[in-house]
Amino acid sequence: MHPHGETGPFVGALDFGGTKVSGALVDAEGRLRVRVLRPTPAGESGESVMRAVLEVLGELRAAPEWPAVVAVGIGSAGPVDARRGTVSPVNVPGWRDFPLVPRVSAAVGGLPVVLTGDGVAMTAAEHWFGAARGYDNALCMVVSTGVGGGLVLGGALLPGPTGNAGHIGHISVDLDGDSCPCGSRGCVERIASGPNIARRALDSGWRPAAGTAPTAAAVADSARSGDPLARASFDRAAQALAAGVAAIATLVEIQVAVVGGGVANAGPVLFDPLRGHLSRYATLSFAARVKVVPAGLGTDAGLVGAAAAAAGALGIKAFTLPG
Amino acid sequence: MHPHGETGPFVGALDFGGTKVSGALVDAEGRLRVRVLRPTPAGESGESVMRAVLEVLGELRAAPEWPAVVAVGIGSAGPVDARRGTVSPVNVPGWRDFPLVPRVSAAVGGLPVVLTGDGVAMTAAEHWFGAARGYDNALCMVVSTGVGGGLVLGGALLPGPTGNAGHIGHISVDLDGDSCPCGSRGCVERIASGPNIARRALDSGWRPAAGTAPTAAAVADSARSGDPLARASFDRAAQALAAGVAAIATLVEIQVAVVGGGVANAGPVLFDPLRGHLSRYATLSFAARVKVVPAGLGTDAGLVGAAAAAAGALGIKAFTLPG
Repeated sequence: MHPHGETGPFVGALDFGGTKVSGALVDAEGRLRVRVLRPTPAGESGESVMRAVLEVLGELRAAPEWPAVVAVGIGSAGPVDARRGTVSPVNVPGWRDFPLVPRVSAAVGGLPVVLTGDGVAMTAAEHWFGAARGYDNALCMVVSTGVGGGLVLGGALLPGPTGNAGHIGHISVDLDGDSCPCGSRGCVERIASGPNIARRALDSGWRPAAGTAPTAAAVADSARSGDPLARASFDRAAQALAAGVAAIATLVEIQVAVVGGGVANAGPVLFDPLRGHLSRYATLSFAARVKVVPAGLGTDAGLVGAAAAAAGALGIKAFTLPG
Repeated sequence: MHPHGETGPFVGALDFGGTKVSGALVDAEGRLRVRVLRPTPAGESGESVMRAVLEVLGELRAAPEWPAVVAVGIGSAGPVDARRGTVSPVNVPGWRDFPLVPRVSAAVGGLPVVLTGDGVAMTAAEHWFGAARGYDNALCMVVSTGVGGGLVLGGALLPGPTGNAGHIGHISVDLDGDSCPCGSRGCVERIASGPNIARRALDSGWRPAAGTAPTAAAVADSARSGDPLARASFDRAAQALAAGVAAIATLVEIQVAVVGGGVANAGPVLFDPLRGHLSRYATLSFAARVKVVPAGLGTDAGLVGAAAAAAGALGIKAFTLPG
């Protein structure tokens, strides 16, 4: 056991999303100690949203481990601007260029605070302890209400200058395709996210079992039972994901694509057609070798990764990160 | 003037393509000294093709500057495998996993030989002395018979593990689109290369001026005169390039996209619609800032960049490269 495992140091972690704000203290082996959760009042004013963050931080500060906290890492729904310390989460209209880093810094007594996009944070966690461990070049992605991601290149996390690199959900794989809420067309997210899987299935005539909500999980259940409409909707999502993964393999030579998030829980219903389509889009020799694997960590990856990204950026030695 | 400018050191440079093999000696300021050119006998046996390379090397070795050559850089049509020292240029069927690095090494008395893809080499040159100079995050691309490219990330060239990173020509921006010779569908190259611009214009009813070959340059001439069919073909190419550039800005946060090659010589006929479409595909705040500029170097970029990439990889100090 690592000598710091029980007594710190710890990195405080915040995972900010459109639905919930999570917090934890993360030790040098990536374990969560204190866990706090608040719903995000996403439709309310910027200060109301900040109040939820401050409540989470307040609970963390009340923990007996708090004096051993050396830094705070934030993974936030994007876009973020790591240089300026601001965030503008698409689904939280009250926050536009919101100065989250200075506000958090003030609330934690001036500890160093490191901000990254949530896709980058999840990637840091999967590279540290999950399915991307041991790979020098990897894409990690979350397929859920949205589609996010992050990149490891040359053994190191690639946050990009503003902390947003790896945004696979908003690359266009269908240049004449449907309008995406981001303003572009034919984005991977517009085709492959959970809500779009459900919408496309419903549009084609699929109906969930009686008493079941028409979610992507319900479409996955039908697909497992062999329903052709449900399978077709997952196949189309898989095709868009495959085109996106192939683009990344062709652009930056990743060895592995790690896929997590609620839609990935569909298992072979997603992964089988994803691998099939990938073999048709990733055709150049150096790209054709890319593997697709399920994520190794669950929803805690956001917290673990926010801490890992901060520890990496600040060079906190107790945290033995790869790269 | 740099003290090494006149007397070396030099890096020998080879630019291997499907049409020609170029060679030169490159000094520490990126100037070409000796220049050699041979046609590539692309349809002949692997040994016939190698003979053209050996002739180029023989002329370089006969130059009075040769004793001051410290290394050889090769930029080759791809895919390449920099780890194994082999190349498999799509348009040179006699070379599949051809051991170009050991063959060149033997011909130059065991000097260190560094292989990269031609898109990576062109990018090294544009970053050293061209339009990407001073940018830490850039895409450089050649739009010509094919569409190639390379990336600078975090101030450094990104060759990727096998030397092929930045292959923008073979990412799919139209997942249900036309089959590409690479085996995928809807690739940027399949829509935006010179031959595809000409083909699409011809298919729509455009005809070149009497006595003029139906090339992309002829389509550009017609477009400048206001021909709507010619303009439409360039607009479609620009749309595909914009979707590709936007994808890269969204994935790795580039600040600038440098566009060179014969099709870029069309000037505003290409660049105006390219910038217009880019504003519609690169929508996220951090990606929307990407600029598009013409390449700063001409066709010599392949040779200069092959030398720059080699000097960078080998840490040759006289070559004061960025990053």
